[in-house]
Amino acid sequence: MRKVTTRLATSAQVLYDFTAEPGNNELSVREGETITITNQNVGGGWIEAKNSRGEVGLVPEDYIEVCSGYQKWLLLAQKTGVMMLKIQLSPGASQASTSNGNDPWAVFDSNASGGFSNNWAAQPEGTETGETSSSAWHSGGHGHPQAYQGPGAEDDEWDEEWDDVKSSGGYAESEAGEGGAIHRGGAHGSSMKIALNKVLIAISFYMMRVRIYTVFQGGEAGPVWAYPDYQLDCVVADPKKGTKMYGLKSYIEYQVTPTTTNKPVNHRYKHFDWLYERLLDKYGSAIPIPCLPDKQVTGRFEEEFIKMRMERLQGWMSRMCRHPVVSSSEVFQLFLSYKDEKDWKMGKRKAEKDETVGVMIFSTIEPEGLPDLDLIEVEQKCEQFNRFTRAMDDGVKDLLTVGNEHWKRCTGPLPKEYQRIGKAFQNLSSVFNSSGYEGEATLTDALTAAGKTYEDIAQMVAEQPKKDLHFLMETNNEYKGLLGCFPDTIGVHKAAIEKVKEADKLVATGKITTSEKITMSKRASTMSYALQAEMIHFHTNRIYDYNRVMQQYLEQQVKFYEMIAEKLRHAHSQFTTM
Amino acid sequence: MRKVTTRLATSAQVLYDFTAEPGNNELSVREGETITITNQNVGGGWIEAKNSRGEVGLVPEDYIEVCSGYQKWLLLAQKTGVMMLKIQLSPGASQASTSNGNDPWAVFDSNASGGFSNNWAAQPEGTETGETSSSAWHSGGHGHPQAYQGPGAEDDEWDEEWDDVKSSGGYAESEAGEGGAIHRGGAHGSSMKIALNKVLIAISFYMMRVRIYTVFQGGEAGPVWAYPDYQLDCVVADPKKGTKMYGLKSYIEYQVTPTTTNKPVNHRYKHFDWLYERLLDKYGSAIPIPCLPDKQVTGRFEEEFIKMRMERLQGWMSRMCRHPVVSSSEVFQLFLSYKDEKDWKMGKRKAEKDETVGVMIFSTIEPEGLPDLDLIEVEQKCEQFNRFTRAMDDGVKDLLTVGNEHWKRCTGPLPKEYQRIGKAFQNLSSVFNSSGYEGEATLTDALTAAGKTYEDIAQMVAEQPKKDLHFLMETNNEYKGLLGCFPDTIGVHKAAIEKVKEADKLVATGKITTSEKITMSKRASTMSYALQAEMIHFHTNRIYDYNRVMQQYLEQQVKFYEMIAEKLRHAHSQFTTM
Repeated sequence: MRKVTTRLATSAQVLYDFTAEPGNNELSVREGETITITNQNVGGGWIEAKNSRGEVGLVPEDYIEVCSGYQKWLLLAQKTGVMMLKIQLSPGASQASTSNGNDPWAVFDSNASGGFSNNWAAQPEGTETGETSSSAWHSGGHGHPQAYQGPGAEDDEWDEEWDDVKSSGGYAESEAGEGGAIHRGGAHGSSMKIALNKVLIAISFYMMRVRIYTVFQGGEAGPVWAYPDYQLDCVVADPKKGTKMYGLKSYIEYQVTPTTTNKPVNHRYKHFDWLYERLLDKYGSAIPIPCLPDKQVTGRFEEEFIKMRMERLQGWMSRMCRHPVVSSSEVFQLFLSYKDEKDWKMGKRKAEKDETVGVMIFSTIEPEGLPDLDLIEVEQKCEQFNRFTRAMDDGVKDLLTVGNEHWKRCTGPLPKEYQRIGKAFQNLSSVFNSSGYEGEATLTDALTAAGKTYEDIAQMVAEQPKKDLHFLMETNNEYKGLLGCFPDTIGVHKAAIEKVKEADKLVATGKITTSEKITMSKRASTMSYALQAEMIHFHTNRIYDYNRVMQQYLEQQVKFYEMIAEKLRHAHSQFTTM
Repeated sequence: MRKVTTRLATSAQVLYDFTAEPGNNELSVREGETITITNQNVGGGWIEAKNSRGEVGLVPEDYIEVCSGYQKWLLLAQKTGVMMLKIQLSPGASQASTSNGNDPWAVFDSNASGGFSNNWAAQPEGTETGETSSSAWHSGGHGHPQAYQGPGAEDDEWDEEWDDVKSSGGYAESEAGEGGAIHRGGAHGSSMKIALNKVLIAISFYMMRVRIYTVFQGGEAGPVWAYPDYQLDCVVADPKKGTKMYGLKSYIEYQVTPTTTNKPVNHRYKHFDWLYERLLDKYGSAIPIPCLPDKQVTGRFEEEFIKMRMERLQGWMSRMCRHPVVSSSEVFQLFLSYKDEKDWKMGKRKAEKDETVGVMIFSTIEPEGLPDLDLIEVEQKCEQFNRFTRAMDDGVKDLLTVGNEHWKRCTGPLPKEYQRIGKAFQNLSSVFNSSGYEGEATLTDALTAAGKTYEDIAQMVAEQPKKDLHFLMETNNEYKGLLGCFPDTIGVHKAAIEKVKEADKLVATGKITTSEKITMSKRASTMSYALQAEMIHFHTNRIYDYNRVMQQYLEQQVKFYEMIAEKLRHAHSQFTTM
């Protein structure tokens, strides 16, 4: 199995001048220069890097500061005018909440009245397992080559290959339980069922274990999550086939290496799926958790499929790493850097027993020192974001449709036509060759070469989508998944606001006290801060991602057309100049 | 009406060094340098020319020697190994033959037994007026933009607008008469009806008025026509609308300027058609005379159509100019350089009375000093050429089919798709613009620009076929017409050989004398020389034409892809570098 590297090259900032010693394979660099790391595993305190002139050589590790393009963008976005509200989850919060022994959100049990059925992103083919929603663009014979097999069939990897049946059972129970009633929402197409009132009313049991940093900067974008100084990322690579039950069952294991420890851990697809379920349960009502790449029944050991799945798992993991709340969570850290099998199993059981799930997550957030928000203003912001995500969802789907059609054309009729043009030239050349007239070898050779060139172009055209359109499609597909999560997240928020609006009536009918009403309002304010921080997280990521993917797409397109021009120029040169 | 220049730039060889005087708009040139003439009508002994570095200036006319690319190629082809047999028609031959008062080919009247129905190029849609044969590739909604209207309808220009009804009547009679029984053969799809026996037998009345030059050179390709030292060409340009009958009738008149006199004459389409009929009657059994561009009923005053017709008339005239026998003929010279209306009308009448038509043309050719050919060898050569033209006809038709499909794709679905991609990017950009998040103007601007770039590319794709595929199609279309003439030309030849094979039997049954048999064999030999010269003329022209058209095609394709790459590079540069 080939090792596939990540899409993004790691760049680094040079901290101090360094002058290369001749003959030592070293590279001179200047302070402030940006270089690209080509090999991080040189050892001995050195890394191999490339400068902007394409020169490659060794540079001392201490002389540079590694930063990803994403982190650079984040720093830039934060510097250029975002009012920063860092909302940080304390690592112990959920633990404390659980140890309390009570469900702090279960005081009232009136029915939720929020607009949860207003799931504008509902996909007609959506199922509970969510297999089709993100593979909607993988249709037709000429579609994406790694097109998934579609929903419906049983996935034996899923059903049969759990290493730890007990743990799986425990999880199944908790899914049906009361505490974390958010149930595969968002991209999964099912509407959320939350006893929303719990969110808003049960204030008295609230455990205050959250540290809050508030930083005001010049900008006016709004509150942001507290981003860590070091941007976590990981590499998903080196898929290996493993077997168990004396070779009767086989599976694929991926190597996941976080940039923090640089120590690889192994995970199978079902482990990723387990992580997804945990994150969805825990954060789903505050943070959109996009679903994983789809399951696959047949052909799941084929190299193409494995490569594709790995690439998508990489994309999903990187997105999760980028999220300051998700990436700092205990369960995510466990997944990335468990010490040994025992550590992993213990961590798994603990995570499955976590009761700070569903709307409980808001109990771990408090915008300390920030004023309560104006409800009307919050409602407007929320509505604007709702409209925006809806419109972007349409735009993304449109691009996916167009892209899929273009993919089909580029891999189907178009190369066939170039091939036929190539064949027609070559055919004419061989007819000319049979003329019996001497001295036309230059023409027939040139004509054959031109024909072969168009056959080459046919192949280039057919292979090009994998080099450019693929990433454009993948990114938009990821965003389609993300955008599919927002209706639920926004729905939770809207329902909360509705509840607060009803508060006066509830006080009048004696259902809540005035003090509870004030706390309800405070709680809604907290949820709004969280949603706004999430909006900004989404916007900054979106701007970064689309910038990057468009650049990548256009760069590859330029190369493609230049290569065709170059090939044709060569074919042209073989004809006699007269 | 815009003046449209010819496709081929005229190049010239510099004979002597010339040093430009500063400030006089002159251009320094060196002996042996090749320059391109940009304006021949400067006057005062100067021409305007461009050198290989793109510098333009005036050069004395006497310092250069104009030569077309075709003539250069011809010289090269003749230098590099073609055994040359110059067969020249004496200008007075047909005149003398007519004045004799007898039909010299009418001695015997036995039925022709040759394989004339073996018309492998027969087109199912072929009609007497030959309108469809060369427009077969103009089909479908997205086909060639100047697609003709199809056959069948009456052409009032053709039927009603003869300036000279008397002359037209005379022509109609001669068409039905005995002398020139070749009747719109070849590309017209009707088989020839020739009293072939006349060709072979009527030797005694043969008028010997033909000068023959025989030049042997190193090569072994075979006999060639006597090419003139100066390659005639002409420019068909400046179409003007004229009216007659007090404005009730209007027509288009083209200006035809031969390179010999540089004096323009005016001709309407029907004059070209008249010339075609004359040439077909006179030379059709020895030389393939491709049919004219089709007639057109509706829309024939539309600029696009006029431009297209002019271009095709130009192509047809240039091809006729290139033929040493055709271009030196009296009727062709009349067409190109009649002095005045009276001269034209008199010439027309004379040409219509010409009786040296049909197979009679062979009576004006004699390969003096050349040995009689071996029949078996001739038969083999003829068969090989027959196979070749048949295969080339298939190849050309294949290329036309592929090209037409490609044309449709390039002007139909493909640009639509690029347009949709462009729209999808722009749409996403405007969605992003509505996010309410500050600081993404760079992205949205870049995304809009990328979208517009793909819209531009859509337009470029749609317009490209006119710039490259068009000429490839036109050339192949011309060749399709030419190749359609060969079955008849070859048929005449095959029938002659058959007759010679029967000669012994004819002598035995007393139908011909031994002396007549010898002369029959000599005559067949003459026909073979003519056919072989025609083969070589075809081959040299074919090599030149395909070299040129492929170069032109590939050059334009290179430009096209380079331009797209350049546009995309610009679009790429507008995204933020991170």
